[in-house]
Amino acid sequence: MKIAVVGTGAIGSFYGGKLAHGGRDVHFLLRSGFAKIKRSGIRIRGKKENFHIARVQGYKAADAIGPVDLVLIALKATNNEALLQLIPPLLHQQTILLTLQNGLGNEDFLAQHFGADRVMSGLCFICLNRISPGLIEHLDYGHLNIGEFVGQAKARTHDVVREFQQCGVVCRVVDNLMQERWGKLVWNIPFNGLTIAAGGITTADVLRDHSLHAAALALMDEVIQGAKSCGYNLPANIALELTKRTETMGAYKPSTLLDFEAGRALEVEAIWGEPLRRAQASGTAMPRLEQLYALLKSLNARRE
Amino acid sequence: MKIAVVGTGAIGSFYGGKLAHGGRDVHFLLRSGFAKIKRSGIRIRGKKENFHIARVQGYKAADAIGPVDLVLIALKATNNEALLQLIPPLLHQQTILLTLQNGLGNEDFLAQHFGADRVMSGLCFICLNRISPGLIEHLDYGHLNIGEFVGQAKARTHDVVREFQQCGVVCRVVDNLMQERWGKLVWNIPFNGLTIAAGGITTADVLRDHSLHAAALALMDEVIQGAKSCGYNLPANIALELTKRTETMGAYKPSTLLDFEAGRALEVEAIWGEPLRRAQASGTAMPRLEQLYALLKSLNARRE
Repeated sequence: MKIAVVGTGAIGSFYGGKLAHGGRDVHFLLRSGFAKIKRSGIRIRGKKENFHIARVQGYKAADAIGPVDLVLIALKATNNEALLQLIPPLLHQQTILLTLQNGLGNEDFLAQHFGADRVMSGLCFICLNRISPGLIEHLDYGHLNIGEFVGQAKARTHDVVREFQQCGVVCRVVDNLMQERWGKLVWNIPFNGLTIAAGGITTADVLRDHSLHAAALALMDEVIQGAKSCGYNLPANIALELTKRTETMGAYKPSTLLDFEAGRALEVEAIWGEPLRRAQASGTAMPRLEQLYALLKSLNARRE
Repeated sequence: MKIAVVGTGAIGSFYGGKLAHGGRDVHFLLRSGFAKIKRSGIRIRGKKENFHIARVQGYKAADAIGPVDLVLIALKATNNEALLQLIPPLLHQQTILLTLQNGLGNEDFLAQHFGADRVMSGLCFICLNRISPGLIEHLDYGHLNIGEFVGQAKARTHDVVREFQQCGVVCRVVDNLMQERWGKLVWNIPFNGLTIAAGGITTADVLRDHSLHAAALALMDEVIQGAKSCGYNLPANIALELTKRTETMGAYKPSTLLDFEAGRALEVEAIWGEPLRRAQASGTAMPRLEQLYALLKSLNARRE
C-alpha cells in the first residue's frame, strides 16, 4: 500500500510517522518544514511514544509522489482550498482519501471535489504538541477510529485499519463515523472554545470555575441536542463520561488554544460554525454555541 | 445644599464638576488624584462641554468634609466595601445618598448599610473618558435621570434634579428608576460585554459583524425578558431604538472596555452577574448572559 501524507503538522507527522516507522511506504508532502525534515527526519517523543524516522521520503510537490493507494489528509481545515491542487496528482482509480481533520464538513468537501466513494474519515483521540517541523511531543492517548463517509464499513475499511494496527496504532473500525464526530464535538466545542474565549485558560481552570463549568455542561447539552436533531443519538452518559475524562487531564491546553496563542488560524467553521449551521438547519436552536461562535470568529479574525 | 462627591473618576468629576462650576458648594473626596487635582483642578474638555474648576474643594478624608445634604456616589461598584468607611462621616439625619453607579445592586447595598430612605439613584447617559485625575474628555451626551430607590418621586427628588438643571445638566425626575436601570442594561449587557469578549472591538464592529450583531440582539432580548420576569415591562421598541442609537455612535469603545484594556477591574457583578441572578431567581433562563458572564468573570480575574 503506497501512502501519501498531506499536512505534516502534529497529526500528519504522528500517524504518518507510525506507518513509516512500521515499515510502510509513506511519502510526506512537505512545505515550510521541507529542509528541516529532510535533514533531521521526524521525531516523536514522549513517555509512551518515542521513535525517530531518520530518512523521510519527503517531497515539495504532489507530482513528485504520484498516484498512491491511500492519502492521509491532516491539513488544517482552514487550508482545504489548497487540496484542490494537492490531491489530483495523488489519485488513481481506487485511491482512498482518509481525512484526519477536526470538526464537520471536511468529508463533504472531499466528496464534492473528488467523489464521495473515495472518502474515509478518521477520528484521532490524541494529545500532541508540535514543537517544530518534524519534532512532535506526544502527551497522551493516540487511538484512531476509522469509518466510511458513505455507509457502513467495507473490506477496505478493515484493510486500512489493519495497516495502522500492524504499525502499533490502537485503531478500530466504526460504522457510524459521523455520529462519533458529533460525539467528539461534545468535548471540543465547549473545551476548545471556552479555554480560548475565557482568556487562555486550561481545561482544569474551566472545571474549577463554577460558572465556566456550568457553561461547559450547558454547551455539551446543546451539542447533544444538535446531534440528535441531525439524526445522531449520542450515548446518554456522554457528558458525564467526557467530564470525568477531562478531570484526569490536569491543566491541559487544547491544541486550538495553543494555535490561538501562537497566532495560527483557528478552525472556527469546522469546529463551531458547521455544527451550529447543521443543527439550526434541522430546527434546533443553540443559543450558547451561537454566541461562542460569534466571539471566536471575531477573536480569530483579529489574530489573522 | 452642601454636596460631597465620593469617587472622582470620570462620572464624579463630570457631574460634581458641573455642580461646582454652577456655583454649588461641592466637596470632593480624593485619593490617588489628590495632589494633581489640588494643583491643577478639574478640567472637562470636549466639543459640547468645556470648563475648568481651578480651585477644587478637595479632601483626603471624609471626616474633613463632615456632614452634607447630598452625597454623589460615583465609585466603581467593585469598591463598594470602601463606602462603609467613607460614608458615615458625611451623614446627618437627612443626608441623601445618590448613587450614579452602573448596574444593579448598588442601591440595595446603600439601603442595607445606611437605610433605604436615604437612597436615590441616578442613571447617567454619557460618554466620558478619564485621561488622568481631574482631566476628563467629554465625548457625547450627558443627561441624567434621577429617581427614588423606594417608591415614587418626592419633593426632595425634584429639589435634587433642580440643582443639576440649574447647573446646566439635562436632568429629569423618573418614577420607576429600577425599570430605567434594566432599560440601560439592555444596552450595557450586550455592548459592554461583547466588545470585551470579542477581543477589544468597537460597537461599530459588533454591528458590522453579522454573527456578533445577532448575538447582541439575542442578548438584548434575554435582558428584556429578564426585566419582565422581575416586574419591569420595557418599551416594546427598546431594542430597535438602542440599535439605532448605537449606529450613530460610530467606532465607540464602551468605558468598561477601556477599563479592561487599561487593566482596571470590571464591574462584572453589577452589570452582568446581578441581572442574571435576579432573572434566574424569577424563573427566567438567560443562557447567553450566563455564558457571557462566565467568560467576563474569567477574563476579569486574569487581569487582576
